[in-house]
Amino acid sequence: MNTFSNDKCTFSEAELLDLGKRAFKGLGLPEDDAADVARILVQADLFGLGTHGLGRIESYGKRLQTGGINARANITVDSPAPTLRLVNGDNGVGPLVGMHALRAAMQAARECGVGVALARQSNHFGPVSPYGLLAAQEGFASIIGSNATTTIAPWGGSDARLGNSPLGFGIPNPGGSPFLLDMAMSVVARAKIRNALKRGEKIPDTWATDRRGSATTDPAAALDGFLLPIGGHKGYGLALMVDLFAGLLSNAAYLTHVKSWVDAPDEPQNLGHFFILIDTRKLGPTSWLADRMNDFAAILHASPSTDPDAPVIVPGEIELANMARQQRDGIAISASVLELLQQHAGVARQP
Amino acid sequence: MNTFSNDKCTFSEAELLDLGKRAFKGLGLPEDDAADVARILVQADLFGLGTHGLGRIESYGKRLQTGGINARANITVDSPAPTLRLVNGDNGVGPLVGMHALRAAMQAARECGVGVALARQSNHFGPVSPYGLLAAQEGFASIIGSNATTTIAPWGGSDARLGNSPLGFGIPNPGGSPFLLDMAMSVVARAKIRNALKRGEKIPDTWATDRRGSATTDPAAALDGFLLPIGGHKGYGLALMVDLFAGLLSNAAYLTHVKSWVDAPDEPQNLGHFFILIDTRKLGPTSWLADRMNDFAAILHASPSTDPDAPVIVPGEIELANMARQQRDGIAISASVLELLQQHAGVARQP
Repeated sequence: MNTFSNDKCTFSEAELLDLGKRAFKGLGLPEDDAADVARILVQADLFGLGTHGLGRIESYGKRLQTGGINARANITVDSPAPTLRLVNGDNGVGPLVGMHALRAAMQAARECGVGVALARQSNHFGPVSPYGLLAAQEGFASIIGSNATTTIAPWGGSDARLGNSPLGFGIPNPGGSPFLLDMAMSVVARAKIRNALKRGEKIPDTWATDRRGSATTDPAAALDGFLLPIGGHKGYGLALMVDLFAGLLSNAAYLTHVKSWVDAPDEPQNLGHFFILIDTRKLGPTSWLADRMNDFAAILHASPSTDPDAPVIVPGEIELANMARQQRDGIAISASVLELLQQHAGVARQP
Repeated sequence: MNTFSNDKCTFSEAELLDLGKRAFKGLGLPEDDAADVARILVQADLFGLGTHGLGRIESYGKRLQTGGINARANITVDSPAPTLRLVNGDNGVGPLVGMHALRAAMQAARECGVGVALARQSNHFGPVSPYGLLAAQEGFASIIGSNATTTIAPWGGSDARLGNSPLGFGIPNPGGSPFLLDMAMSVVARAKIRNALKRGEKIPDTWATDRRGSATTDPAAALDGFLLPIGGHKGYGLALMVDLFAGLLSNAAYLTHVKSWVDAPDEPQNLGHFFILIDTRKLGPTSWLADRMNDFAAILHASPSTDPDAPVIVPGEIELANMARQQRDGIAISASVLELLQQHAGVARQP
């Protein structure tokens, strides 16, 4: 059942999971692998993270078609110690490698209380929060990160040598709303600078530098330069630490060794990810955790807001509200993304 | 052998470890416990982190003397799963509880590849980087954090409900310099705002808010208000996640449940810490790790710096250089801190 309004169409979660699965199957993935990829991307759409949802079929599809990603990846998992899982993604689609790593870490955490999976030979694995939600639903607190193509200059440097690495955290809340944080290390996304340029506005000098590494208020110079990390040297340090855990320790590429998706479309990126999971059921009864999580959120929500129309919120609150709304009303997908999905799925275009 | 110059005196590391141990023994701690506390505080001084070094004898000493900290803490460790260690600090001195938790996590990580210690019933445990260094020296990559007295308003809120929680990361480099990151979540420390006030200067509006939670450029209003977290909602989220792992999951106090050291000097703070350690020797040979770590640092150092006099550095570089210099030339301690140490140690004051 599809509803069309302007250039958006809405679908149920089950419909999109099925369409996404068929589309990636059409791109050459085995059925179960295609289902894993669809699970992460549809969850991103449910959260309202459209830039990281099924729309990624475009870039993932291109790389699958040029052979830059391996559609028939043979993902393997080694276990050099009871809690450690080393995942070789065999250059598979990122969310597929991510799902294998998540499951490997969950298995280790069930056995040992804590599980750590380090993945190499991977690609862009989508946003972090879908993995954090899946972990939280099974009772695992999580710290998850990935490295990325280099777009940021070192603090005080003047060329792109590190990625705008995503880092996420999740804490389960049995029967309630988990806390989910999913952040990149830049003050703003590049899109915000593009929007300022379109509107002819200056940008704050904390957002980006020009190509020589000097802070700028000119959006055009900023787009030719580098995004600045949050907190200056602090965000620089955080981004490095994510790359050290996700890339260096996992035996993946790191820093400038990560191949650009755009410049080298047929070469493996060899991205790395890390998943650190703690089984909260080993820490206390679910009622203990639920009581503390609800109290924790209540304390924050009770802070009088500076703007009466914008109450204080907690990490994940917006995404979980988007999910609830779209599970009820349907998930909005743009007509162009729908067309691409249907094309790969081999569905005749709807009139 | 002491050298006096102005109001600073320099000592060898061994001399300060001994003096610090005797001072905390004088405050009622058993000898081994006093040595643990001195180890962390002297390491902070070695790193040049004077605000978190032996100078803490003043505030720790006051709380020990009023009974706000338990000098004869009976620290216990439970292990609900092979990789999990739950540490009850019995309201002991923070660095003592921190050392117990670090050792418990190292033991679990040696056995299982990963070790996680969650500590409760603790106090201010010093800076994070000394623990990161000790872990790195034994081959462990680390993620370490603590919660803290509430000084920050929730993002968009207008009263202090979360702490400026420290978070640290460390990656060993066998035979070379480890990476050590140690950061709090505020854009700047309160001392920088005090300095601006003294000089009669305005502050950037990204540093702090007034007491109503609105951004301000007035240092006096800022000191009456709240520090702002790095990256706005991102730093807010990070600070919450540190408190969730360090305070909520550890069964310690969290958010406003943390008692103020100043307002309630004789009540236990019940702070919490977390230590996540990964045994890098399970990931590959030490030569593999050293090669990758040295390459990683070299890539960053090779970025042309925007300021020719300020080459690009990596996290921990300043602290490790301070340590090397002070291990060679002696560690500078202020005369007032020396006097307090000697007083508690029962040493006759030097002429």
